[in-house]
Amino acid sequence: MSELDFYFDFSSPYAYLASFQIDSIAEKHGLKARWRPIMLGAAFKATGNQALVAQPLKGDYAKRDWERQARLYQLPFAPAKDIPILTLHAARAYWWLVEGNEELAKLFAQAIFMAFYVQSRDISDKEVVADVAAEMGINRTALLLAIADPMIKDRLIVETNQAIDRGVFGAPFFFVKDEPFWGGDRLWMLDLWLDRGGW
Amino acid sequence: MSELDFYFDFSSPYAYLASFQIDSIAEKHGLKARWRPIMLGAAFKATGNQALVAQPLKGDYAKRDWERQARLYQLPFAPAKDIPILTLHAARAYWWLVEGNEELAKLFAQAIFMAFYVQSRDISDKEVVADVAAEMGINRTALLLAIADPMIKDRLIVETNQAIDRGVFGAPFFFVKDEPFWGGDRLWMLDLWLDRGGW
Repeated sequence: MSELDFYFDFSSPYAYLASFQIDSIAEKHGLKARWRPIMLGAAFKATGNQALVAQPLKGDYAKRDWERQARLYQLPFAPAKDIPILTLHAARAYWWLVEGNEELAKLFAQAIFMAFYVQSRDISDKEVVADVAAEMGINRTALLLAIADPMIKDRLIVETNQAIDRGVFGAPFFFVKDEPFWGGDRLWMLDLWLDRGGW
Repeated sequence: MSELDFYFDFSSPYAYLASFQIDSIAEKHGLKARWRPIMLGAAFKATGNQALVAQPLKGDYAKRDWERQARLYQLPFAPAKDIPILTLHAARAYWWLVEGNEELAKLFAQAIFMAFYVQSRDISDKEVVADVAAEMGINRTALLLAIADPMIKDRLIVETNQAIDRGVFGAPFFFVKDEPFWGGDRLWMLDLWLDRGGW
C-alpha cells in the first residue's frame, strides 16, 4: 500500500470526475497518489450492494448528478454506453503497465477515462483498449497478450480482494495510510486530513 | 413544498450533523429551510435500500465517519443507542407542532437531535419525546394525545410518500425548488447552486 491510494473502477463516473483532482491534492502535500483500478462489481457482491443505476430513485439521482458535476467542473461527459460496463480489459492492461512504468500506467488510465467519457469509445472492448494504448506508443500485441496472461488476471483479483479487505465498498475510494475516504465529494476532507495530519 | 426543503429522519447522524448548517445557508440566501422529518425506513423499502449500519463494510465506514465528522465540527456525538431507532413518535410530534407554529416545531426538532445525540436520551420512547417537549413548555398531555391522533399519523405518512415521490432515498436530502441534493456533504453544492441560481 502507498501513503495515498486511489481505488476506482473505470466504469464509475464519480471516479472519472475525481481523477482530475486527486493528483494535484497529492502533489500539494508532496505525495504521489497510487491509482488502483479494481473490479467494483466484486466489491458490490461483498457488501450486498448494487450498481447505482440499478437502484430505484438513487440511480436517477446519480445520472442527474454526474451531469451536474460535469457542468460545474466544465468537464465533458459523454459516456459511450450505459454504465456499468465491463472494465476488466482496461484494468488488466493497467496492472500490466504498472509493473514496468507507473507513470505510463497512470497516463494510460487517464487516456482510458478520456476514451470512454469524452470520446465516447467503448472501452469494454479489448480492441478499443488496445487502440487507446497503441495511440500512446504502447505495443498493441504485447498488451493483448498481457491481458490474457493468468499472472495479470491474478494481479487484478488480488488487488480487488485487497481493496475489499481494506473496506472498499464503492468508488472512488481513497486511503491516506489507513484512513478511508469514500467518494469524490470527500476530497476536501482528505485534503484537510493531510493538512492537519488527521484529527 | 417550499423553496428549500430539508428532509431527514431523526435517526440519521448525517442529518444531525447537517442540521447545524442548513439554516445558516438558508439565511445567507434570504430563505427559510422547511424541515421535514420523514420515515426513512419507508424510503429504503421503496428503493430496496437498507440502513447503513446493516451494510457490510459501508456500515463500519459510516460509524467511523460519523465520529470523524463530529470531531471535525466539534460537535458532541453520543447517540443513546445503536441506530436506526424508532423515530415515529418524534416525527409525529413535529408534524403536530408545525401546524401551530413552525418555529417552535423546528426548535423541538433541534431539541430532539440534542436529546438523542448529545444527552444520550432514548427518543424512540414516546415518554422521552414528551419530556423533551415539556422542557420547552409544550403541553405534555396534549402532545401524547396528538401523536396518537389518526390525522397526525396520516400527516407523517403523506409527508413520507411525498418525499419518495420527489425522489428522496436517503437522509439528509435537500431540494432547492426541484433540484435535489443528497447528503450533508453536498451542502457546499446547494449553497453554490443558490449563489449562482443553478448551472
